Amino acid sequence: MVLQFKLDSQSEEPLYRQLYAQIKAAILSQDLPRGERLPPTRELAGSLGLNRTTVAAAYELLESEGLILGQVGRGSFVQGPPERPKPLDWRSLLGEQDEAAPLLAPGSAPISFSASTPSEALFPLQEFRASCREVIESAAAPQILQYGPSLGYGPLRRYLLDQSRRRGDAGPDDDILITSGCQQAFDLIQRVLAPRGETVLLEDPVLLSVRNVFLREGARVLGIPVGESGIDLEALARLVEKERPRLMLLTPNFQNPTGTTLPEAARREALLIARRAGVVTVENETYGELRYSGAPLPTLKSLDSSGGVILLNSFSKIAFPGLRVGWVIGPRYFIERLAEAKQARDRHSDQLSQAVLLRFAESGRLAAHQRRMLERGAERLSACLEACAGELPPGSRYTRPEGGMNVWVTLPEPLLASEMAERALREGVSFLPGRFFAVSRPQPRSLRLSFAGLEPDQIRAGIAVLGRIFKQELERAGERRDEPAAALV
Amino acid sequence: MVLQFKLDSQSEEPLYRQLYAQIKAAILSQDLPRGERLPPTRELAGSLGLNRTTVAAAYELLESEGLILGQVGRGSFVQGPPERPKPLDWRSLLGEQDEAAPLLAPGSAPISFSASTPSEALFPLQEFRASCREVIESAAAPQILQYGPSLGYGPLRRYLLDQSRRRGDAGPDDDILITSGCQQAFDLIQRVLAPRGETVLLEDPVLLSVRNVFLREGARVLGIPVGESGIDLEALARLVEKERPRLMLLTPNFQNPTGTTLPEAARREALLIARRAGVVTVENETYGELRYSGAPLPTLKSLDSSGGVILLNSFSKIAFPGLRVGWVIGPRYFIERLAEAKQARDRHSDQLSQAVLLRFAESGRLAAHQRRMLERGAERLSACLEACAGELPPGSRYTRPEGGMNVWVTLPEPLLASEMAERALREGVSFLPGRFFAVSRPQPRSLRLSFAGLEPDQIRAGIAVLGRIFKQELERAGERRDEPAAALV
Repeated sequence: MVLQFKLDSQSEEPLYRQLYAQIKAAILSQDLPRGERLPPTRELAGSLGLNRTTVAAAYELLESEGLILGQVGRGSFVQGPPERPKPLDWRSLLGEQDEAAPLLAPGSAPISFSASTPSEALFPLQEFRASCREVIESAAAPQILQYGPSLGYGPLRRYLLDQSRRRGDAGPDDDILITSGCQQAFDLIQRVLAPRGETVLLEDPVLLSVRNVFLREGARVLGIPVGESGIDLEALARLVEKERPRLMLLTPNFQNPTGTTLPEAARREALLIARRAGVVTVENETYGELRYSGAPLPTLKSLDSSGGVILLNSFSKIAFPGLRVGWVIGPRYFIERLAEAKQARDRHSDQLSQAVLLRFAESGRLAAHQRRMLERGAERLSACLEACAGELPPGSRYTRPEGGMNVWVTLPEPLLASEMAERALREGVSFLPGRFFAVSRPQPRSLRLSFAGLEPDQIRAGIAVLGRIFKQELERAGERRDEPAAALV
Repeated sequence: MVLQFKLDSQSEEPLYRQLYAQIKAAILSQDLPRGERLPPTRELAGSLGLNRTTVAAAYELLESEGLILGQVGRGSFVQGPPERPKPLDWRSLLGEQDEAAPLLAPGSAPISFSASTPSEALFPLQEFRASCREVIESAAAPQILQYGPSLGYGPLRRYLLDQSRRRGDAGPDDDILITSGCQQAFDLIQRVLAPRGETVLLEDPVLLSVRNVFLREGARVLGIPVGESGIDLEALARLVEKERPRLMLLTPNFQNPTGTTLPEAARREALLIARRAGVVTVENETYGELRYSGAPLPTLKSLDSSGGVILLNSFSKIAFPGLRVGWVIGPRYFIERLAEAKQARDRHSDQLSQAVLLRFAESGRLAAHQRRMLERGAERLSACLEACAGELPPGSRYTRPEGGMNVWVTLPEPLLASEMAERALREGVSFLPGRFFAVSRPQPRSLRLSFAGLEPDQIRAGIAVLGRIFKQELERAGERRDEPAAALV
């Protein structure tokens, strides 16, 4: 056994601890194997030029940890490394999954109405590539690659704020924060405005990923029922009065999952209710630019003069969701606090994507792409609504959106959307049943058809399959009802 | 006054409410100005083909909200819109700033030792551009632009996990999550492992942005003192025993701000302490590949066999911080839970940057860049240490890192780093004083010199200025001490 020790008498660490640590390291690495005899303290002290009590103190410490064992008259023997500790039990450490853990979405199918995403086939690849090349060749490249401000990439912020001011969506007291997509905006708003115990009003039904942001952090989440023309204003007024919420989150245009749009008078009334009670209104405008027909309505933000509305938007639905860029517009003081939260969350958003999307927008390519998206979206929406009219069984109801990505279907009694989803999946068509969107009001007969990612032919074929399944299941249910109840003998 | 009403007797909404909402909208928009007389109920009912009670019900509702006022014998007059509510008071709504709000960093100066960032002048722009072009021209482009998985971009995850396995930094039971930079990794770990009330051990001093992630969410944060060879193991053992922490966060290589490295024996001992108590070890390996001299030491992750170590890394220090890509390696069950938290935070990280950095790495460009970074880093580190040796006043102490981006200087009594920072800023040199890094142990005479972003000449010039200032201030302090105390007459 050759032991090499490096002891430093100048160090702040006492010599006995240095010696202890080095012998221990040798035991742990098994350079000193179990059963090996350590040199007697006197001998080791002599060879290292140490006081014998120093060596004895090191041995004592080793023995106290069970790494060596002294046997009277025989010397000290290596015992360790100590028994390998049991692996860390992560399951018991982390406990059960969050209550608000994501439901398991049904598998995807050849024709999938499950995902509210733009169609990859419509991505304008050449225009994206040109924007990207222009950015990376530009003189701004080194700055883009360096750390940036938490508020976002300056030129993009100025561009978006300027656009929003022209539309009336930002006033002189407003500022803008760039987020990593709209999901992060919800998260930051939860952090700043709706900590544990605060009450939040969400549309019911609403996206699970939105509901969970608030629920997981312990906010009280209550649903405002959504009908065919958006939220129920009487219910809203009642909830605001009774539950004293901190904020309400509304999607006035083409709400996900229902596709409904809130009429202008209702927008004004909702704002009035919120203003009177000092409730902050968060407006999700992500789908707003996907209007395929009808006249655009003013945003809540543009109708508000109290500084109580926060507007969220992103490039995900109108351009490229894989580039994670969204934004929040609101009063400067609030945006500053949001930027503090953002800094703690991820320092700042990716700058390459911010710069590429800015180039894509200011070059006019975004507007051109949007025109194509609106044409294609209109075709897809009509295909969807026509197929619903032609294929769904009598007694079905469905919303008639003028834009967006989703139609909300409610099946006649006694069909259950979850059961239908399983059967449809076996026949190559998938969709999400209502339970994926419920806040406090289960709608077991409802389901979402996300049509925007599919070709019109796929939409027609998929809804034909669904219509056939629903009708067959209705018939079967009818037969079951007609059967006499089994008599107890 | 011409009032146009659109009433729909097929609607679910009662007619009186439709009428009420439309009159209200007209009042709010001031189409019906204050003082205007509304038509008598009988007259309006007649012209609209409604029952008079319907109109009366609408008027009643308007009156209950103070929008109109009925005067006996004269009719109903518009009162509203009601007084404009006071603007929302954001300051009182959001309360005071977080306790853990960022300190205001002193301004930047011509020679800034304040930011621990790589030098923009060293960014390999041609290689970045080539990587970017290859990605956007590739067949994977549409997939990159679409929504992606919360765990991260598949090909990048496989590449990094494979690399880590080869180095011994990932075992068969480990998985990987891509984060939006290392800051997000801290945030997600806080979310999953250290909620409100849990105890977390951090190095003291440590980065403010790390400390705040835990502090802001209500974790109990305790500091493990860092000396010239890393954390104090006796203090660690004491803290673990007494405070029952959930996790400890260590930076064994080139810790920020001190630049210190934990010796191998101490790594083994720290792990042993953690394992015995079931404490999770989070290893920040962000600076690990910036070793300019000396032999690399094994990571904590590679030394651990209990599954209790989580490894964090990112591309920010070795490539481009503006592209927000970091990663976490740890046991699969933990990574799954982390991915759930990530999904709620920002759905997934930017895919363009993930793909570009993958291309940059797998093409060999990252390795070539790293060799250049190590050469340049070595020059900068020597310039910094030589200047410290030559320029700092006697009695100063400073760490002697073998890599990384930072040197930690402690000035002789009675100099205070904060005061020196103000004076230095006036002379064109900036740095961050110790209070920006304190956990529980103020080090008022300490400061961080971040040298990596500066040229060797700037480093020498900057430290010469600092040395002159420190010496002058020491002299002045000496003179003040020598002055006789003013006698009270």
